[in-house]
Amino acid sequence: MRYALGVEYDGSEFHGWQRLTAHGESGGPATLQATLEEALSGVAAHPVETICAGRTDAGVHAECQVVHFDSDASRTPRAWVLGTTSRLPPSMRIRWCAPVDDDFSARFSARARRYRYRLLNHQVRPALGRQWLAWERRPLDVDAMHRAAQQLLGERDFEAFRTVHCQAAHARRELQRLDVTRDGDIVSFTVQANAFLHHQVRNMVGSLLEVGAGERPEAWIVDVLEGRDRTLAGPTAPAQGLVFVGPRYPRDWPLPDEVRFDV
Amino acid sequence: MRYALGVEYDGSEFHGWQRLTAHGESGGPATLQATLEEALSGVAAHPVETICAGRTDAGVHAECQVVHFDSDASRTPRAWVLGTTSRLPPSMRIRWCAPVDDDFSARFSARARRYRYRLLNHQVRPALGRQWLAWERRPLDVDAMHRAAQQLLGERDFEAFRTVHCQAAHARRELQRLDVTRDGDIVSFTVQANAFLHHQVRNMVGSLLEVGAGERPEAWIVDVLEGRDRTLAGPTAPAQGLVFVGPRYPRDWPLPDEVRFDV
Repeated sequence: MRYALGVEYDGSEFHGWQRLTAHGESGGPATLQATLEEALSGVAAHPVETICAGRTDAGVHAECQVVHFDSDASRTPRAWVLGTTSRLPPSMRIRWCAPVDDDFSARFSARARRYRYRLLNHQVRPALGRQWLAWERRPLDVDAMHRAAQQLLGERDFEAFRTVHCQAAHARRELQRLDVTRDGDIVSFTVQANAFLHHQVRNMVGSLLEVGAGERPEAWIVDVLEGRDRTLAGPTAPAQGLVFVGPRYPRDWPLPDEVRFDV
Repeated sequence: MRYALGVEYDGSEFHGWQRLTAHGESGGPATLQATLEEALSGVAAHPVETICAGRTDAGVHAECQVVHFDSDASRTPRAWVLGTTSRLPPSMRIRWCAPVDDDFSARFSARARRYRYRLLNHQVRPALGRQWLAWERRPLDVDAMHRAAQQLLGERDFEAFRTVHCQAAHARRELQRLDVTRDGDIVSFTVQANAFLHHQVRNMVGSLLEVGAGERPEAWIVDVLEGRDRTLAGPTAPAQGLVFVGPRYPRDWPLPDEVRFDV
Protein backbone atom coordinates (compact mmCIF):
# COMPACT_ATOMS: atom_id res chain seq x y z
CA MET A 1 0.00 0.00 0.00
CA ARG A 2 1.11 3.53 -0.77
CA TYR A 3 0.15 6.43 1.49
CA ALA A 4 0.40 10.20 1.18
CA LEU A 5 0.98 12.28 4.34
CA GLY A 6 0.56 15.99 5.03
CA VAL A 7 3.41 17.03 7.36
CA GLU A 8 3.70 20.33 9.26
CA TYR A 9 6.97 21.44 10.82
CA ASP A 10 8.86 24.22 12.50
CA GLY A 11 12.24 23.90 10.79
CA SER A 12 14.10 26.08 13.32
CA GLU A 13 15.93 23.24 15.01
CA PHE A 14 16.44 20.96 12.01
CA HIS A 15 19.25 20.64 9.52
CA GLY A 16 16.81 20.84 6.59
CA TRP A 17 14.71 18.11 5.01
CA GLN A 18 17.13 15.67 3.48
CA ARG A 19 18.43 12.60 5.31
CA LEU A 20 22.23 12.82 5.13
CA THR A 21 23.17 9.15 5.44
CA ALA A 22 21.28 5.88 5.08
CA HIS A 23 20.67 5.67 8.81
CA GLY A 24 20.72 9.28 9.91
CA GLU A 25 23.82 11.31 10.71
CA SER A 26 25.53 11.14 14.07
CA GLY A 27 25.93 14.41 15.92
CA GLY A 28 24.61 17.79 14.79
CA PRO A 29 20.94 18.68 14.40
CA ALA A 30 18.63 16.01 13.00
CA THR A 31 17.08 16.26 9.54
CA LEU A 32 13.32 16.32 9.07
CA GLN A 33 13.36 13.30 6.76
CA ALA A 34 15.37 11.12 9.17
CA THR A 35 13.12 12.14 12.08
CA LEU A 36 9.94 11.40 10.12
CA GLU A 37 11.20 8.07 8.78
CA GLU A 38 12.19 6.92 12.24
CA ALA A 39 8.69 7.71 13.57
CA LEU A 40 6.98 6.03 10.59
CA SER A 41 9.21 2.97 10.91
CA GLY A 42 8.20 2.69 14.55
CA VAL A 43 4.50 2.66 13.63
CA ALA A 44 5.01 0.32 10.66
CA ALA A 45 7.35 -2.03 12.55
CA HIS A 46 9.57 -2.09 9.44
CA PRO A 47 11.97 0.43 7.86
CA VAL A 48 10.10 3.16 5.94
CA GLU A 49 11.55 5.50 3.31
CA THR A 50 9.82 8.67 2.15
CA ILE A 51 9.81 10.85 -0.96
CA CYS A 52 8.78 14.48 -0.44
CA ALA A 53 7.21 17.13 -2.68
CA GLY A 54 9.88 19.74 -2.00
CA ARG A 55 13.08 19.50 0.02
CA THR A 56 13.42 22.45 2.38
CA ASP A 57 16.67 24.00 3.60
CA ALA A 58 17.83 24.29 7.20
CA GLY A 59 15.58 26.69 9.13
CA VAL A 60 12.73 26.64 6.58
CA HIS A 61 9.26 25.67 7.83
CA ALA A 62 6.32 23.84 6.25
CA GLU A 63 2.58 24.21 6.70
CA CYS A 64 1.91 21.15 4.56
CA GLN A 65 4.86 19.26 3.14
CA VAL A 66 3.61 16.12 1.36
CA VAL A 67 5.44 12.80 1.35
CA HIS A 68 4.58 9.32 0.13
CA PHE A 69 5.74 5.97 1.48
CA ASP A 70 4.95 2.29 1.03
CA SER A 71 3.93 -0.14 3.75
CA ASP A 72 2.06 -3.43 3.99
CA ALA A 73 1.49 -2.91 7.70
CA SER A 74 -2.21 -3.04 8.50
CA ARG A 75 -2.84 0.50 9.82
CA THR A 76 -5.74 2.90 9.31
CA PRO A 77 -5.02 6.47 8.10
CA ARG A 78 -6.02 7.62 11.60
CA ALA A 79 -3.44 5.26 13.14
CA TRP A 80 -0.70 6.59 10.83
CA VAL A 81 -1.61 10.18 11.78
CA LEU A 82 -1.89 9.72 15.54
CA GLY A 83 0.76 7.02 16.00
CA THR A 84 3.37 8.84 13.95
CA THR A 85 2.70 12.24 15.55
CA SER A 86 3.06 10.71 19.00
CA ARG A 87 6.59 9.58 18.02
CA LEU A 88 7.60 12.96 16.57
CA PRO A 89 9.16 15.91 18.47
CA PRO A 90 6.79 18.87 19.24
CA SER A 91 8.10 20.72 16.18
CA MET A 92 6.56 18.21 13.72
CA ARG A 93 3.09 16.75 13.24
CA ILE A 94 1.14 14.71 10.71
CA ARG A 95 -1.92 16.68 9.47
CA TRP A 96 -3.54 13.86 7.46
CA CYS A 97 -2.94 10.51 5.76
CA ALA A 98 -4.53 9.34 2.51
CA PRO A 99 -4.16 5.93 0.78
CA VAL A 100 -3.14 6.47 -2.85
CA ASP A 101 -2.47 4.34 -5.94
CA ASP A 102 1.06 3.08 -6.51
CA ASP A 103 1.61 5.52 -9.38
CA PHE A 104 1.20 8.56 -7.10
CA SER A 105 4.46 10.35 -6.32
CA ALA A 106 4.59 13.21 -3.81
CA ARG A 107 7.34 14.67 -5.98
CA PHE A 108 6.44 13.90 -9.60
CA SER A 109 2.65 14.13 -9.35
CA ALA A 110 2.82 17.69 -7.96
CA ARG A 111 1.87 20.35 -10.53
CA ALA A 112 2.83 23.36 -8.38
CA ARG A 113 4.48 24.38 -5.12
CA ARG A 114 3.53 27.39 -3.00
CA TYR A 115 5.76 29.24 -0.54
CA ARG A 116 5.18 32.19 1.77
CA TYR A 117 7.94 34.53 2.96
CA ARG A 118 7.24 36.95 5.82
CA LEU A 119 9.31 39.66 7.43
CA LEU A 120 8.90 42.39 10.02
CA ASN A 121 9.52 45.79 8.43
CA HIS A 122 10.43 47.89 11.48
CA GLN A 123 13.45 49.62 12.93
CA VAL A 124 13.49 47.02 15.74
CA ARG A 125 13.84 43.23 15.27
CA PRO A 126 10.83 40.96 15.96
CA ALA A 127 10.27 39.22 19.32
CA LEU A 128 6.86 37.47 19.21
CA GLY A 129 6.90 35.34 16.04
CA ARG A 130 10.65 35.70 15.50
CA GLN A 131 10.91 31.96 14.73
CA TRP A 132 9.23 32.52 11.35
CA LEU A 133 9.69 36.19 10.61
CA ALA A 134 12.70 37.66 8.89
CA TRP A 135 13.54 41.33 9.57
CA GLU A 136 14.14 44.30 7.30
CA ARG A 137 14.74 47.66 8.94
CA ARG A 138 14.79 49.76 5.73
CA PRO A 139 11.26 51.13 5.00
CA LEU A 140 9.87 49.07 2.10
CA ASP A 141 7.70 50.25 -0.80
CA VAL A 142 5.48 47.20 -1.13
CA ASP A 143 3.69 48.45 -4.24
CA ALA A 144 7.01 48.87 -6.05
CA MET A 145 8.05 45.35 -5.00
CA HIS A 146 4.76 43.89 -6.21
CA ARG A 147 5.01 45.63 -9.58
CA ALA A 148 8.62 44.51 -10.01
CA ALA A 149 7.62 40.94 -9.08
CA GLN A 150 4.98 40.75 -11.83
CA GLN A 151 7.77 41.09 -14.41
CA LEU A 152 9.08 37.65 -13.35
CA LEU A 153 5.84 35.74 -14.02
CA GLY A 154 5.63 33.10 -16.73
CA GLU A 155 7.99 30.42 -17.95
CA ARG A 156 11.51 31.85 -17.61
CA ASP A 157 15.09 30.83 -17.13
CA PHE A 158 15.75 31.59 -13.44
CA GLU A 159 19.51 30.96 -13.57
CA ALA A 160 20.12 34.32 -11.86
CA PHE A 161 18.14 33.26 -8.80
CA ARG A 162 19.57 29.82 -8.02
CA THR A 163 22.53 29.00 -5.83
CA VAL A 164 25.67 27.53 -7.35
CA HIS A 165 24.88 24.40 -5.31
CA CYS A 166 21.62 23.84 -7.23
CA GLN A 167 21.68 20.43 -8.92
CA ALA A 168 18.78 20.92 -11.34
CA ALA A 169 19.60 20.12 -14.98
CA HIS A 170 18.26 23.46 -16.20
CA ALA A 171 16.75 26.62 -14.69
CA ARG A 172 13.49 26.96 -16.66
CA ARG A 173 10.53 27.16 -14.32
CA GLU A 174 7.00 28.54 -14.63
CA LEU A 175 6.41 31.25 -12.02
CA GLN A 176 2.64 31.34 -11.58
CA ARG A 177 2.26 33.89 -8.78
CA LEU A 178 4.41 36.33 -6.82
CA ASP A 179 2.29 38.65 -4.68
CA VAL A 180 3.82 41.15 -2.26
CA THR A 181 1.46 42.51 0.40
CA ARG A 182 1.63 44.46 3.67
CA ASP A 183 -0.39 44.05 6.87
CA GLY A 184 0.86 46.71 9.29
CA ASP A 185 4.58 46.05 9.85
CA ILE A 186 4.43 42.55 8.33
CA VAL A 187 5.37 42.22 4.64
CA SER A 188 4.42 38.92 2.95
CA PHE A 189 5.47 37.33 -0.31
CA THR A 190 3.22 34.56 -1.71
CA VAL A 191 5.01 32.62 -4.43
CA GLN A 192 3.81 29.74 -6.61
CA ALA A 193 5.59 27.93 -9.45
CA ASN A 194 5.47 24.51 -11.09
CA ALA A 195 8.75 23.85 -9.24
CA PHE A 196 11.56 25.87 -7.66
CA LEU A 197 15.32 25.94 -7.91
CA HIS A 198 17.55 25.74 -4.84
CA HIS A 199 17.32 29.11 -2.97
CA GLN A 200 15.10 30.56 -5.69
CA VAL A 201 12.45 32.01 -3.39
CA ARG A 202 14.99 33.50 -0.97
CA ASN A 203 17.01 34.96 -3.83
CA MET A 204 13.95 36.52 -5.50
CA VAL A 205 12.89 37.98 -2.13
CA GLY A 206 16.42 39.32 -1.53
CA SER A 207 16.39 41.07 -4.91
CA LEU A 208 12.87 42.46 -4.45
CA LEU A 209 14.01 43.93 -1.11
CA GLU A 210 16.61 45.98 -3.00
CA VAL A 211 13.77 47.42 -5.10
CA GLY A 212 11.53 47.95 -2.06
CA ALA A 213 14.27 49.80 -0.19
CA GLY A 214 14.81 52.11 -3.17
CA GLU A 215 18.33 50.83 -3.89
CA ARG A 216 17.29 49.65 -7.36
CA PRO A 217 14.56 50.66 -9.87
CA GLU A 218 11.66 48.31 -10.60
CA ALA A 219 13.04 47.46 -14.05
CA TRP A 220 16.31 46.23 -12.53
CA ILE A 221 14.74 42.89 -11.65
CA VAL A 222 14.35 42.16 -15.39
CA ASP A 223 18.03 42.99 -15.95
CA VAL A 224 18.91 40.49 -13.22
CA LEU A 225 16.64 37.80 -14.71
CA GLU A 226 17.95 38.32 -18.23
CA GLY A 227 21.57 38.56 -17.07
CA ARG A 228 21.35 34.90 -15.93
CA ASP A 229 24.15 35.66 -13.45
CA ARG A 230 23.65 35.01 -9.72
CA THR A 231 26.20 37.66 -8.77
CA LEU A 232 23.97 40.41 -10.24
CA ALA A 233 21.02 39.58 -7.94
CA GLY A 234 20.42 40.75 -4.37
CA PRO A 235 21.52 38.79 -1.27
CA THR A 236 19.78 35.56 -0.24
CA ALA A 237 17.01 36.40 2.27
CA PRO A 238 17.35 34.51 5.60
CA ALA A 239 15.75 31.06 5.97
CA GLN A 240 13.50 31.62 8.96
CA GLY A 241 11.07 33.85 7.02
CA LEU A 242 10.24 31.03 4.60
CA VAL A 243 7.31 28.61 4.91
CA PHE A 244 6.55 25.88 2.38
CA VAL A 245 2.76 26.27 2.20
CA GLY A 246 2.55 23.06 0.22
CA PRO A 247 2.44 21.34 -3.17
CA ARG A 248 -0.63 21.21 -5.42
CA TYR A 249 -1.86 18.05 -7.17
CA PRO A 250 -4.47 17.42 -9.86
CA ARG A 251 -7.97 16.85 -8.46
CA ASP A 252 -8.17 13.19 -9.52
CA TRP A 253 -5.84 12.18 -6.66
CA PRO A 254 -7.84 11.46 -3.48
CA LEU A 255 -6.14 14.14 -1.37
CA PRO A 256 -7.39 16.89 0.98
CA ASP A 257 -8.48 20.18 -0.60
CA GLU A 258 -5.48 22.03 0.87
CA VAL A 259 -3.15 20.33 -1.63
CA ARG A 260 -5.45 20.33 -4.67
CA PHE A 261 -4.38 22.39 -7.61
CA ASP A 262 -7.39 24.62 -8.21
CA VAL A 263 -7.91 25.66 -4.61
CA MET B 1 10.98 62.88 32.58
CA ARG B 2 8.36 60.18 32.28
CA TYR B 3 8.31 57.83 29.30
CA ALA B 4 5.81 55.29 27.99
CA LEU B 5 7.12 52.19 26.19
CA GLY B 6 5.38 49.65 23.95
CA VAL B 7 6.88 46.23 24.76
CA GLU B 8 6.43 43.02 22.74
CA TYR B 9 7.33 39.63 24.16
CA ASP B 10 7.18 35.90 23.72
CA GLY B 11 6.36 34.81 27.27
CA SER B 12 7.24 31.14 26.72
CA GLU B 13 10.48 31.21 28.66
CA PHE B 14 9.54 33.74 31.36
CA HIS B 15 8.05 33.33 34.78
CA GLY B 16 5.34 35.93 34.00
CA TRP B 17 5.54 39.70 34.25
CA GLN B 18 6.06 40.54 37.90
CA ARG B 19 9.48 41.00 39.45
CA LEU B 20 9.60 38.65 42.44
CA THR B 21 12.16 40.40 44.64
CA ALA B 22 13.64 43.88 44.75
CA HIS B 23 16.65 42.84 42.73
CA GLY B 24 15.35 39.88 40.72
CA GLU B 25 15.18 36.35 41.96
CA SER B 26 18.11 33.95 41.87
CA GLY B 27 17.58 30.72 39.96
CA GLY B 28 14.52 29.72 37.96
CA PRO B 29 13.26 31.50 34.85
CA ALA B 30 13.52 35.30 34.79
CA THR B 31 10.49 37.56 34.96
CA LEU B 32 9.68 39.98 32.16
CA GLN B 33 9.68 42.99 34.50
CA ALA B 34 13.11 42.21 35.97
CA THR B 35 14.57 41.61 32.50
CA LEU B 36 13.14 44.86 31.15
CA GLU B 37 14.21 46.93 34.18
CA GLU B 38 17.75 45.59 33.95
CA ALA B 39 17.98 46.62 30.28
CA LEU B 40 16.44 50.06 30.93
CA SER B 41 18.77 50.63 33.89
CA GLY B 42 21.72 49.87 31.63
CA VAL B 43 20.63 52.50 29.11
CA ALA B 44 19.73 55.06 31.81
CA ALA B 45 22.87 54.38 33.86
CA HIS B 46 20.69 54.42 37.01
CA PRO B 47 18.15 51.97 38.48
CA VAL B 48 14.82 52.11 36.65
CA GLU B 49 11.49 50.81 37.93
CA THR B 50 8.48 50.21 35.70
CA ILE B 51 4.70 50.11 36.08
CA CYS B 52 2.81 48.08 33.48
CA ALA B 53 -0.71 48.21 32.04
CA GLY B 54 -1.47 44.58 32.76
CA ARG B 55 0.61 41.93 34.52
CA THR B 56 0.70 38.72 32.47
CA ASP B 57 1.07 35.19 33.86
CA ALA B 58 3.86 32.74 33.10
CA GLY B 59 3.72 31.67 29.44
CA VAL B 60 1.42 34.51 28.30
CA HIS B 61 2.65 36.72 25.43
CA ALA B 62 2.21 40.40 24.57
CA GLU B 63 1.95 42.22 21.27
CA CYS B 64 2.04 45.57 23.00
CA GLN B 65 2.36 45.68 26.75
CA VAL B 66 2.69 49.32 27.89
CA VAL B 67 4.90 50.45 30.79
CA HIS B 68 5.93 53.81 32.13
CA PHE B 69 9.14 54.77 33.92
CA ASP B 70 10.92 57.92 35.08
CA SER B 71 14.43 59.00 34.15
CA ASP B 72 16.42 62.22 34.01
CA ALA B 73 18.98 60.61 31.69
CA SER B 74 19.31 62.59 28.47
CA ARG B 75 18.15 60.03 25.90
CA THR B 76 16.00 60.39 22.79
CA PRO B 77 12.98 58.09 22.33
CA ARG B 78 14.96 56.40 19.53
CA ALA B 79 17.86 55.75 21.92
CA TRP B 80 15.51 54.23 24.52
CA VAL B 81 14.00 51.95 21.84
CA LEU B 82 17.22 50.78 20.19
CA GLY B 83 19.50 50.81 23.25
CA THR B 84 17.03 48.90 25.42
CA THR B 85 16.18 46.34 22.73
CA SER B 86 19.88 45.63 22.18
CA ARG B 87 20.15 44.70 25.87
CA LEU B 88 17.06 42.44 25.84
CA PRO B 89 16.95 38.72 24.99
CA PRO B 90 15.54 37.82 21.51
CA SER B 91 12.14 37.10 23.05
CA MET B 92 11.53 40.80 23.99
CA ARG B 93 11.69 44.07 22.09
CA ILE B 94 10.70 47.70 22.51
CA ARG B 95 8.22 48.76 19.79
CA TRP B 96 8.16 52.49 20.59
CA CYS B 97 8.89 55.11 23.24
CA ALA B 98 6.87 58.27 23.88
CA PRO B 99 7.60 61.08 26.40
CA VAL B 100 4.50 61.66 28.55
CA ASP B 101 3.42 64.03 31.34
CA ASP B 102 4.09 62.98 34.92
CA ASP B 103 0.41 62.25 35.55
CA PHE B 104 0.35 59.49 32.92
CA SER B 105 0.21 55.99 34.38
CA ALA B 106 0.48 52.92 32.15
CA ARG B 107 -1.81 51.22 34.64
CA PHE B 108 -4.30 53.84 35.84
CA SER B 109 -4.65 55.86 32.62
CA ALA B 110 -5.68 52.78 30.62
CA ARG B 111 -9.40 52.68 29.81
CA ALA B 112 -9.42 49.17 28.34
CA ARG B 113 -7.31 46.07 27.80
CA ARG B 114 -7.54 43.72 24.86
CA TYR B 115 -6.50 40.05 24.73
CA ARG B 116 -6.51 37.42 22.02
CA TYR B 117 -6.70 33.69 22.65
CA ARG B 118 -5.96 31.24 19.83
CA LEU B 119 -6.13 27.47 19.59
CA LEU B 120 -5.76 24.78 16.97
CA ASN B 121 -9.00 22.81 16.67
CA HIS B 122 -7.77 19.55 15.18
CA GLN B 123 -7.34 15.90 16.18
CA VAL B 124 -3.54 16.41 16.13
CA ARG B 125 -1.58 18.96 18.25
CA PRO B 126 0.02 22.01 16.55
CA ALA B 127 3.70 22.05 15.41
CA LEU B 128 4.30 25.32 13.52
CA GLY B 129 3.07 28.10 15.82
CA ARG B 130 2.80 25.81 18.87
CA GLN B 131 4.47 28.51 21.03
CA TRP B 132 1.28 30.61 20.93
CA LEU B 133 -1.45 28.20 20.02
CA ALA B 134 -3.41 26.14 22.50
CA TRP B 135 -4.98 22.89 21.30
CA GLU B 136 -8.50 21.52 21.47
CA ARG B 137 -9.19 18.20 19.78
CA ARG B 138 -12.98 18.17 20.31
CA PRO B 139 -14.75 19.67 17.25
CA LEU B 140 -15.94 23.14 18.30
CA ASP B 141 -19.18 24.90 17.33
CA VAL B 142 -17.82 28.44 17.02
CA ASP B 143 -21.23 30.03 16.40
CA ALA B 144 -22.56 28.54 19.64
CA MET B 145 -19.50 29.82 21.53
CA HIS B 146 -19.92 33.30 20.07
CA ARG B 147 -23.61 33.44 20.97
CA ALA B 148 -22.88 32.21 24.49
CA ALA B 149 -20.11 34.78 24.85
CA GLN B 150 -22.43 37.69 24.03
CA GLN B 151 -24.39 36.91 27.21
CA LEU B 152 -21.36 37.96 29.28
CA LEU B 153 -21.05 41.48 27.82
CA GLY B 154 -21.61 44.57 29.96
CA GLU B 155 -20.73 45.47 33.53
CA ARG B 156 -20.96 42.24 35.54
CA ASP B 157 -19.61 40.55 38.62
CA PHE B 158 -17.08 38.04 37.22
CA GLU B 159 -16.43 36.26 40.54
CA ALA B 160 -17.03 32.90 38.82
CA PHE B 161 -14.16 33.48 36.38
CA ARG B 162 -11.33 34.57 38.67
CA THR B 163 -8.80 32.39 40.41
CA VAL B 164 -8.83 32.13 44.20
CA HIS B 165 -5.40 33.83 44.06
CA CYS B 166 -6.90 37.00 42.53
CA GLN B 167 -6.16 39.98 44.78
CA ALA B 168 -8.67 42.47 43.32
CA ALA B 169 -10.96 44.06 45.88
CA HIS B 170 -14.08 43.17 43.89
CA ALA B 171 -14.94 41.32 40.69
CA ARG B 172 -17.04 43.91 38.82
CA ARG B 173 -15.63 44.55 35.36
CA GLU B 174 -17.08 45.88 32.12
CA LEU B 175 -16.71 43.30 29.36
CA GLN B 176 -16.80 45.30 26.12
CA ARG B 177 -16.20 42.63 23.53
CA LEU B 178 -15.89 38.84 23.31
CA ASP B 179 -15.82 37.61 19.72
CA VAL B 180 -15.25 33.98 18.79
CA THR B 181 -14.21 33.32 15.18
CA ARG B 182 -12.77 30.50 13.07
CA ASP B 183 -10.19 30.61 10.27
CA GLY B 184 -9.76 27.03 9.06
CA ASP B 185 -8.54 24.99 12.04
CA ILE B 186 -7.64 28.08 14.10
CA VAL B 187 -10.26 29.34 16.58
CA SER B 188 -9.71 32.86 17.97
CA PHE B 189 -11.24 34.71 20.91
CA THR B 190 -10.91 38.52 20.93
CA VAL B 191 -11.69 39.93 24.36
CA GLN B 192 -11.79 43.53 25.60
CA ALA B 193 -12.76 44.90 29.02
CA ASN B 194 -12.01 47.97 31.12
CA ALA B 195 -9.80 45.63 33.18
CA PHE B 196 -9.49 41.90 33.85
CA LEU B 197 -9.35 39.70 36.90
CA HIS B 198 -6.55 37.16 37.44
CA HIS B 199 -7.14 34.23 35.00
CA GLN B 200 -10.41 35.78 33.79
CA VAL B 201 -9.72 35.40 30.06
CA ARG B 202 -8.45 31.83 30.37
CA ASN B 203 -11.38 30.86 32.59
CA MET B 204 -13.96 32.41 30.23
CA VAL B 205 -12.30 30.60 27.29
CA GLY B 206 -12.26 27.32 29.23
CA SER B 207 -15.99 27.62 29.94
CA LEU B 208 -16.84 28.60 26.36
CA LEU B 209 -14.97 25.49 25.18
CA GLU B 210 -17.42 23.37 27.18
CA VAL B 211 -20.24 25.02 25.21
CA GLY B 212 -18.40 24.71 21.88
CA ALA B 213 -17.74 20.99 22.45
CA GLY B 214 -21.43 20.41 23.18
CA GLU B 215 -20.86 19.47 26.82
CA ARG B 216 -23.02 22.40 28.02
CA PRO B 217 -25.88 24.43 26.51
CA GLU B 218 -25.32 28.08 25.54
CA ALA B 219 -27.42 29.31 28.47
CA TRP B 220 -25.15 27.50 30.97
CA ILE B 221 -22.59 30.32 30.77
CA VAL B 222 -25.15 32.65 32.39
CA ASP B 223 -25.73 30.12 35.18
CA VAL B 224 -21.98 30.09 35.79
CA LEU B 225 -21.76 33.90 35.80
CA GLU B 226 -24.71 34.29 38.14
CA GLY B 227 -23.57 31.46 40.40
CA ARG B 228 -20.48 33.53 41.31
CA ASP B 229 -18.69 30.26 42.14
CA ARG B 230 -15.41 29.39 40.41
CA THR B 231 -16.01 25.67 40.88
CA LEU B 232 -19.05 25.82 38.55
CA ALA B 233 -17.03 27.13 35.57
CA GLY B 234 -14.97 25.16 33.05
CA PRO B 235 -11.24 24.47 33.42
CA THR B 236 -8.64 27.24 32.98
CA ALA B 237 -7.45 27.25 29.33
CA PRO B 238 -3.64 26.89 28.97
CA ALA B 239 -1.43 30.00 29.05
CA GLN B 240 0.37 29.68 25.72
CA GLY B 241 -2.75 30.48 23.67
CA LEU B 242 -3.05 33.93 25.30
CA VAL B 243 -1.64 37.18 23.88
CA PHE B 244 -2.07 40.57 25.56
CA VAL B 245 -2.83 42.66 22.47
CA GLY B 246 -2.46 45.80 24.56
CA PRO B 247 -4.13 48.48 26.65
CA ARG B 248 -6.16 51.39 25.26
CA TYR B 249 -5.75 55.02 26.43
CA PRO B 250 -7.78 58.20 25.80
CA ARG B 251 -6.69 60.05 22.68
CA ASP B 252 -5.33 63.09 24.55
CA TRP B 253 -2.22 61.12 25.59
CA PRO B 254 0.54 61.44 22.96
CA LEU B 255 0.76 57.71 22.21
CA PRO B 256 0.82 55.60 19.02
CA ASP B 257 -2.53 54.72 17.43
CA GLU B 258 -2.19 51.06 18.36
CA VAL B 259 -2.88 51.86 22.03
CA ARG B 260 -5.54 54.56 21.55
CA PHE B 261 -9.00 53.82 22.75
CA ASP B 262 -11.13 54.38 19.68
CA VAL B 263 -8.93 52.47 17.24
